[in-house]
Amino acid sequence: MDAAEFRRRGREMVDYVADYLENIEQRPVYPDVEPGYLRSLIPTEAPMEPENYDDIIRDVERVIMPGVTHWHSPYFYAYYPAASSYPAMLADMLCGAIGCIGFSWAASPACTELETVMLDWFGKMLQLPECFIAGTHGHGGGVIQGTASEATLMSLLAARCKAVRWVQASNPKKSEAEIFSKLVAYTSEQAHSSVERAALIGGVMMRKVPTDNCFAVRGDILKEMVEKDKAAGLIPFYFCATLGTTPSCGFDSITELGPICNGENMWMHIDAAYAGSAFICPEFRPLLNGVEFADSFNLNPHKWLLVNFDCSTMWVKNRADIIGAFKMEPLYLKHENQESGRHWQIPLGRRFRSLKMWFVFRMYGLKGLQAHIRKQVALAKEFESLVRADKRFEICAEVILGLVCFRLKGSNELNQKLLKMITKSREIHLVPCQLSGRFVLRFAICARATESRHIQQAWQHITQLTFDIKMSQRE
Amino acid sequence: MDAAEFRRRGREMVDYVADYLENIEQRPVYPDVEPGYLRSLIPTEAPMEPENYDDIIRDVERVIMPGVTHWHSPYFYAYYPAASSYPAMLADMLCGAIGCIGFSWAASPACTELETVMLDWFGKMLQLPECFIAGTHGHGGGVIQGTASEATLMSLLAARCKAVRWVQASNPKKSEAEIFSKLVAYTSEQAHSSVERAALIGGVMMRKVPTDNCFAVRGDILKEMVEKDKAAGLIPFYFCATLGTTPSCGFDSITELGPICNGENMWMHIDAAYAGSAFICPEFRPLLNGVEFADSFNLNPHKWLLVNFDCSTMWVKNRADIIGAFKMEPLYLKHENQESGRHWQIPLGRRFRSLKMWFVFRMYGLKGLQAHIRKQVALAKEFESLVRADKRFEICAEVILGLVCFRLKGSNELNQKLLKMITKSREIHLVPCQLSGRFVLRFAICARATESRHIQQAWQHITQLTFDIKMSQRE
Repeated sequence: MDAAEFRRRGREMVDYVADYLENIEQRPVYPDVEPGYLRSLIPTEAPMEPENYDDIIRDVERVIMPGVTHWHSPYFYAYYPAASSYPAMLADMLCGAIGCIGFSWAASPACTELETVMLDWFGKMLQLPECFIAGTHGHGGGVIQGTASEATLMSLLAARCKAVRWVQASNPKKSEAEIFSKLVAYTSEQAHSSVERAALIGGVMMRKVPTDNCFAVRGDILKEMVEKDKAAGLIPFYFCATLGTTPSCGFDSITELGPICNGENMWMHIDAAYAGSAFICPEFRPLLNGVEFADSFNLNPHKWLLVNFDCSTMWVKNRADIIGAFKMEPLYLKHENQESGRHWQIPLGRRFRSLKMWFVFRMYGLKGLQAHIRKQVALAKEFESLVRADKRFEICAEVILGLVCFRLKGSNELNQKLLKMITKSREIHLVPCQLSGRFVLRFAICARATESRHIQQAWQHITQLTFDIKMSQRE
Repeated sequence: MDAAEFRRRGREMVDYVADYLENIEQRPVYPDVEPGYLRSLIPTEAPMEPENYDDIIRDVERVIMPGVTHWHSPYFYAYYPAASSYPAMLADMLCGAIGCIGFSWAASPACTELETVMLDWFGKMLQLPECFIAGTHGHGGGVIQGTASEATLMSLLAARCKAVRWVQASNPKKSEAEIFSKLVAYTSEQAHSSVERAALIGGVMMRKVPTDNCFAVRGDILKEMVEKDKAAGLIPFYFCATLGTTPSCGFDSITELGPICNGENMWMHIDAAYAGSAFICPEFRPLLNGVEFADSFNLNPHKWLLVNFDCSTMWVKNRADIIGAFKMEPLYLKHENQESGRHWQIPLGRRFRSLKMWFVFRMYGLKGLQAHIRKQVALAKEFESLVRADKRFEICAEVILGLVCFRLKGSNELNQKLLKMITKSREIHLVPCQLSGRFVLRFAICARATESRHIQQAWQHITQLTFDIKMSQRE
């Protein structure tokens, strides 16, 4: 395929993309396929000779689309949103064309520099304390990670490194392995599975902290656990707070937790993967109060801020902590402007992802982004009031942002049955969670295209299925 | 921006991309900017109101392009290639539009399934033993990682987990921390820095194995080191072999090393990030002989096989090893077809990257991909012969694939001076390496657009600069 053909096929693809997104409602949101469906639809081996592009495009509808869960359908209410917007897609095309691998400043200065400045822009939009902003006299700054899992892992590894140095400062003979075996990390029992996974990777203990009746970790309980572990000769070194947990969008009390972590010399990382985007709205910004106590903070614009996956933004208070944890510079990576490089991630190479932020921030403006968040929160509130108006149902956690946790009053089995029927009907898609031992349905406002009529329709569908269940129980 | 505007802007972007790549030769390959250049060119904060798209596009030329190192310029000979092709870019557009997050089968069945089948296609193209192919009776299979760094880390973590289980089977009372402190991993002194980094992350010792005069690790030296460590009460558990090292494209002797690893119950991972793509050509496939001894194998189609970054393909002989290392399933990730999901990576979420492989394999066909590899190897050979014909220069490592390591006969300072002049002139771009204490220039065939005339021109440029140096020395 030469440039001329790319021009033609590229235009066709642009139209295909626009058509797909404009008409996505007409596709069943959840695919009707069984595991292994795809293998039988395509050859067992790659072709020897080049194929025709038209055949490939035909196969997108024949092979791929029947197996796609349409995350951008307005009937998709599962997990948390995956961001998508036209400006981000345009920026991604440009990113693909430039195709630089940004593992150092010299490998493409614009890639490193735009990232630094975009993280500053974004940090200011979030009203982060100045110590997290690179273009100041502080020692902090931001970086784009692929996912929140990687941000959590990086923070835990930096904290582990710092803890080892700190212990060895007073006990120079203690081996690293000996120290590792005493380190304890903490996180909410409601935290994402990737937090526990980070501790597994880092080879340190992790304790799950019980939450209060708002599914939030409070200061007193962490304090108590830390004291107990210290008394047992262990070394508490890390706490991962969550703002906007995956099951219920609960918020750990970081104003209580932060001072405890600071006092105990424990690294506090804040994972606000989903909820963080809302903090650009002044009315939601108080949820982030206490960030000044944190050593690192992360959220995913690729979840709720219209920047296509992957783009997970992370700030640290002290760049040296995270750089120092891993720095190694073979000759083929050395260059004159060494200090401007950055190895703050697990992967060495990375795409020019800040272009997506740049395009989205400029094409929407802060006001446009705030409007997007507010609209989706309003839709969640609308759904909440529909649930509350129906006495058969109950709301299971305070609706603060775009997630509504609800269930039919009654047994877990009843709710499992309802979800099974929802999934099977393929009209809307949502996933469950467990809250205090109860099986709960999660209704997350996800797609950019979701409007009030979709919410109303979704609720009508759920109540119809509920009616069917109740009828069948009577028979 | 609505769909209609996206159609218009998308077409413009397709043309911008095609123009950029068609005329890339006219841009200086290496940017003439100082660190911090970009910050002064754009506002210090994000705009409040939406901006005009035309202004953003104008800023791409004003702000971004002056700071881009043009990896796809035919004058780019640094590092190793970053793959790029039009079919991959089209697939990436589609990937962005579907915008699914493939963290489980249910999250988008097509995403998981196409990946599995593409890894099988590719595995067959590479003539991998059947035990690595998923669609067989074996226990193996492939997965797309973001980078080779992640593949290495995953393999080391899986090996660590396996080693702990193995030790605890005979010593149930040994703690994990105690075992960790005895584990030893090995890799070549020529291995990529990410290998050492993986050991740092995993909290295990890593020994650098000296290489022979072809910069390859041989069996006897590994055997000797392993014996010595075992005698000291340590537990050798992992060896990372490299096929195509970063400094000189050296090849560890895996036919010698594999049986040793198997005999010692050590995991052998093969990192063939760059060189691996060449193994689709029968004439280069012997370089992979011995892969049957490996537990895991990785290469980056995003380096040399025309699939845009990121796409790093990894195969394991036993899926359970790598899945078992981390599996955790909170309720919101559970679904009926659990076993088809896969958490083989550090990040939980991932893009629909297999689309790029599918488009590229089909649009080029195996023959087209082989032709691409052969053409670039031939260009390296052409450059090699130019160097060999000039008595002032020497070749520093056997030229097997697309990399030529060369230097001026004489001091390191002389060669550092030459490289500095090359970098400063910005006509071509390359980076150095260190081989046996000598400062060496690496000339890697990178861009898809590189032709014989560019090689000739590059050599002429290098010899002209050499002439200038020699003249100035005489003055």
